[in-house]
Amino acid sequence: MNLQEKIAGLCVKAKTASYSLALAKDSERSGALRILSEKLRRPEITGKIIAANDSDISYAKENNLTAALIDRLKLDETRINNIADALLKIINLPDPLNRGEVWTRPNGMNIKKIKVPLGVIGIIYESRPNVTIDAAALCIKSGNAVVLRGGKEAIFSNTVLAELIKSALSEAGLDPDCVQFIDDITRESANILMKQRGSVDVLIPRGNAPLINSVAENSNIPVIETGVGNCHIYVDDSADFDEAAHIILKSKTRSSVCNAVETVLVSQKIYKDFLPVMKRRLDELSVELRGCEKTCEILSCAAAEDEDYYTEFLDYILSVKIVEGLDAAVEHINKYNTGHSEAILTQNLNNAREFCERVNAAAVYVNVSTRFTDGEEFGFGAEMGISTSKLHARGPVGPADLTTVKYIIDGDNLVR
Amino acid sequence: MNLQEKIAGLCVKAKTASYSLALAKDSERSGALRILSEKLRRPEITGKIIAANDSDISYAKENNLTAALIDRLKLDETRINNIADALLKIINLPDPLNRGEVWTRPNGMNIKKIKVPLGVIGIIYESRPNVTIDAAALCIKSGNAVVLRGGKEAIFSNTVLAELIKSALSEAGLDPDCVQFIDDITRESANILMKQRGSVDVLIPRGNAPLINSVAENSNIPVIETGVGNCHIYVDDSADFDEAAHIILKSKTRSSVCNAVETVLVSQKIYKDFLPVMKRRLDELSVELRGCEKTCEILSCAAAEDEDYYTEFLDYILSVKIVEGLDAAVEHINKYNTGHSEAILTQNLNNAREFCERVNAAAVYVNVSTRFTDGEEFGFGAEMGISTSKLHARGPVGPADLTTVKYIIDGDNLVR
Repeated sequence: MNLQEKIAGLCVKAKTASYSLALAKDSERSGALRILSEKLRRPEITGKIIAANDSDISYAKENNLTAALIDRLKLDETRINNIADALLKIINLPDPLNRGEVWTRPNGMNIKKIKVPLGVIGIIYESRPNVTIDAAALCIKSGNAVVLRGGKEAIFSNTVLAELIKSALSEAGLDPDCVQFIDDITRESANILMKQRGSVDVLIPRGNAPLINSVAENSNIPVIETGVGNCHIYVDDSADFDEAAHIILKSKTRSSVCNAVETVLVSQKIYKDFLPVMKRRLDELSVELRGCEKTCEILSCAAAEDEDYYTEFLDYILSVKIVEGLDAAVEHINKYNTGHSEAILTQNLNNAREFCERVNAAAVYVNVSTRFTDGEEFGFGAEMGISTSKLHARGPVGPADLTTVKYIIDGDNLVR
Repeated sequence: MNLQEKIAGLCVKAKTASYSLALAKDSERSGALRILSEKLRRPEITGKIIAANDSDISYAKENNLTAALIDRLKLDETRINNIADALLKIINLPDPLNRGEVWTRPNGMNIKKIKVPLGVIGIIYESRPNVTIDAAALCIKSGNAVVLRGGKEAIFSNTVLAELIKSALSEAGLDPDCVQFIDDITRESANILMKQRGSVDVLIPRGNAPLINSVAENSNIPVIETGVGNCHIYVDDSADFDEAAHIILKSKTRSSVCNAVETVLVSQKIYKDFLPVMKRRLDELSVELRGCEKTCEILSCAAAEDEDYYTEFLDYILSVKIVEGLDAAVEHINKYNTGHSEAILTQNLNNAREFCERVNAAAVYVNVSTRFTDGEEFGFGAEMGISTSKLHARGPVGPADLTTVKYIIDGDNLVR
């Protein structure tokens, strides 16, 4: 059996299993997650996961991955406990299924519009092995089968975790085929998965911009794009300088996340006074600046290339550009951004309103850090990622977004 | 300028114009539609449309199009008046924009989740010229710019209608670039439009199965699939025979629509008694039957090929298959259907519930004709088509489905 047939086969298995999972009660779906959470805490299982993870870490070291990447891969007892805790949060979320609206038409036709599972969700993700559990759990909670295709860096860990999920499903009386794991880590396996229209209902890529663009370009399955955040903060004329510098520092210096700020735009009316204040705060944590011409006249920093403004640095690097005012800020953002999170710092009500109306992004903030775009912070409990797509789900993707609607209609022998 | 550059240019123009349209009030958007509706009723304009339509009709006759297709193309005074009337319905729908939910987080962060336009909607459609007005009007009502690529059969009519929409936008003080019309009717122009990711936000194909599959396979823009309906009626053991035959007749004999029934499944417990009753009714309107082996033993009719069960006939042709019972009916439907509309005729409550839960379709009916899957019938006022996609919109697509969400957040200098 070649790879094409193997992956197509896994996806069809997931599709078949999805029909029974869609009929399972929340107590059954959440029950499977509770068993999984208990399994993760058992010393012999924790040990098995850590042993597999050690193989991934050794491989990463042999291949000279950065310390940051190796840290993202690492699983220890504490982190495995955190994964088990995260499952409890998902278990306790309200059932996203079978709720909705109902109405009756003048001819007596009763219409129920209810939430049902999407069916099969394909997830293509990188490095961090906890995604295997998180993503599968959100799918199971929402009644969806899932096909997992993780990154090569975490293949040993992911294999053990996927087996664990399947055994939890079996113990809960659900079909273990609801979770399929693709253990081939070539690029080809991802490309094949992207073409399984008919068995996979939606594809969610989680990772860096090249991965997400490749999926969006090549998939013949609908895609929810997540996680690439080229986020901006615009410092308006009336911004409070100290507060602004503080918000920028905090928005930049958890640097590896998609909701971190990458470019600061500053109104030309205030930049001469504001930039030194900002630089002093950013120097505290040695943030590297890349500035436009005017910025470089005031601060000693590298000159920004146009490419820098398109870049999600995910690092202690910040682009700076002086703009004529609100119009220019909005124009810059709508040209360079990825539709994730954008903020204005201002005391001017009209400018705040206009910025929010005109900027094209999932989340737009007034005097709040871009770092709040997050399922937990929004009060959703858990998330699959931050959608920068406009269709279906935008912003934090919770279990309720992993559903579609179905109209169930009855009447007394009605015709038209 | 080659075709590629020309279409890319139109789409960028639409994108630019979409930003101002997104800020227009409902009174402005609906105002433009009111002007359009008045224009359509002016005798000199009606005359101009009919003259252009005559060219399409002549071309159709020269090319030996069927009478049914020529009838779909035809515009006369009555039909133009009907288009103007349909606009009034769209005008009077509630504004789908800027409504939503609001909540406050424990840290004092205020979150507004509101509906905003998608941006630019691309529509690839066939034959009927009224779609030019309907589709553009639904987009304008919901604050979206639109790129129209109609069928070659209606090119003269569509060109005049698109100009009319642009002039109505101008008179209403809105940017006429919000509506772009692609006057190239080669297949290449559609293929180019499908690749305008970045300027076009969503693509809605309206037409037959090959068109829709081609868009779904080739587009790098998110697609809402509409309108291919391979719909089924399952006649359960306990169905009332006369009512069932009547519902089947009515569901089949407006044959050219996507919500017409194409296959009837009959429980083997009743088929010997039911089929003659059904045939007598269908004979009234000379519906051709294509039956499975058991059907052919009872009725004189052609034998159905497997391909027939996949076919949306859009004609006075009906496939018939005898199935063992509910399980087999559900299995057949989930294998052959397009996810549009499916019905069970039964007096058995459990079977009704199970059918509705297990059948995978936008709309599932109990003792009601599949023909009710329609925006008007559901009470939505107007629709862009019937979505058989699971993502974003499923079932009748109204103006509210032509929106996305945006989170607008404020707080008192909040960081994390």
